[in-house]
Amino acid sequence: MTTVLTPHEAGQRLERQLAFVREIDRLKGVLRRTTLHDGSRPENSAEHSWHLAAMALVLSEYAPSGAEVSRAVQMCLVHDVVEIDAGDTFAYDTAGYVDKAEREQAAAARVFGLLPTDQGIALRALWDEFEEGETPTARFANALDRLQPLLANLATGGGSWQAAGVTRSRVERRMGPIERGCPNLWPWVCAAIERATREGLIRDDAIGV
Amino acid sequence: MTTVLTPHEAGQRLERQLAFVREIDRLKGVLRRTTLHDGSRPENSAEHSWHLAAMALVLSEYAPSGAEVSRAVQMCLVHDVVEIDAGDTFAYDTAGYVDKAEREQAAAARVFGLLPTDQGIALRALWDEFEEGETPTARFANALDRLQPLLANLATGGGSWQAAGVTRSRVERRMGPIERGCPNLWPWVCAAIERATREGLIRDDAIGV
Repeated sequence: MTTVLTPHEAGQRLERQLAFVREIDRLKGVLRRTTLHDGSRPENSAEHSWHLAAMALVLSEYAPSGAEVSRAVQMCLVHDVVEIDAGDTFAYDTAGYVDKAEREQAAAARVFGLLPTDQGIALRALWDEFEEGETPTARFANALDRLQPLLANLATGGGSWQAAGVTRSRVERRMGPIERGCPNLWPWVCAAIERATREGLIRDDAIGV
Repeated sequence: MTTVLTPHEAGQRLERQLAFVREIDRLKGVLRRTTLHDGSRPENSAEHSWHLAAMALVLSEYAPSGAEVSRAVQMCLVHDVVEIDAGDTFAYDTAGYVDKAEREQAAAARVFGLLPTDQGIALRALWDEFEEGETPTARFANALDRLQPLLANLATGGGSWQAAGVTRSRVERRMGPIERGCPNLWPWVCAAIERATREGLIRDDAIGV
């Protein structure tokens, strides 16, 4: 902000910022299919976003060349706020994906539109970049968004994989973005899926192939 | 990391990083006295940390001169992880504050100690800086940590103020760090406390003074 605002304009700007801060509180009420690592309850999208952002710090050395870690952290913080309106679509719910993009676009316009225009544009750009998943930063954030529920499912004896009867080939496809977004973590992920399949946490659909 | 690790060392490093990522999942189970804005349930420290970090982005223009916003975001992400061991101490619980520092120091040593040494030192330094509250960055993060529950209490007709029968002078003292950490938000905060007292959300102990 280089423009000098009148006291009235400054007050209006603050009210829009606080409206956004209040609105995103609702993300704490959006439940995901994955549970906490202790299995006690479903995880919500706000605490999931916190976990991703912290992972972006701790796992930054696995980001692809050219990724900006502090931008990835910001991306993790806002990547799910559209779920306030659009809800969380379960990763393995094919039907839910049909109108997911449309619902989320409308939600992005409304939620980021609460902010002063300059900030709404900046935060919306973070969200768009995450969704497109093309920049090194977005590839890194997307990889973390796949890795985080993988860790929860491993910690809970299969978690949402078991509940939905998901097969190994679907898990491998779902985890695919980790190969591009955290290339040096990919061997660990493949070994974890292999082990989870052997232990019966994931249904093996590759027998005999 | 400039040192080249052997595959075995790299594997051990990753296991320590993942141990930390798994451990902090427990912060989602640490409950605070404040509730969600809809009053439906107590907030946990993980989603609270997410909210703070998002606020650091949205309210960055109110940070004091010299504050580094991306470092403040990181600080918000880790500022409460010691509560995994030490629990959340309610802001207006005098007894709980007696051994709070000691409990939290021990927790910091254990939790950050899960990480590879270089990262444990870096994240612990963020936490120490937040606790000391002296740098512009830490003052900003501390201010947000006071503002966030203020917004929740205002949204819920008094929330934890009502539950604990807290007086206006205690709320004003508790919110004091906002004056140094977000100086341009301080008039808004004072007006909000004034209004909340008038509406009976905070007990007025200044009558006749």
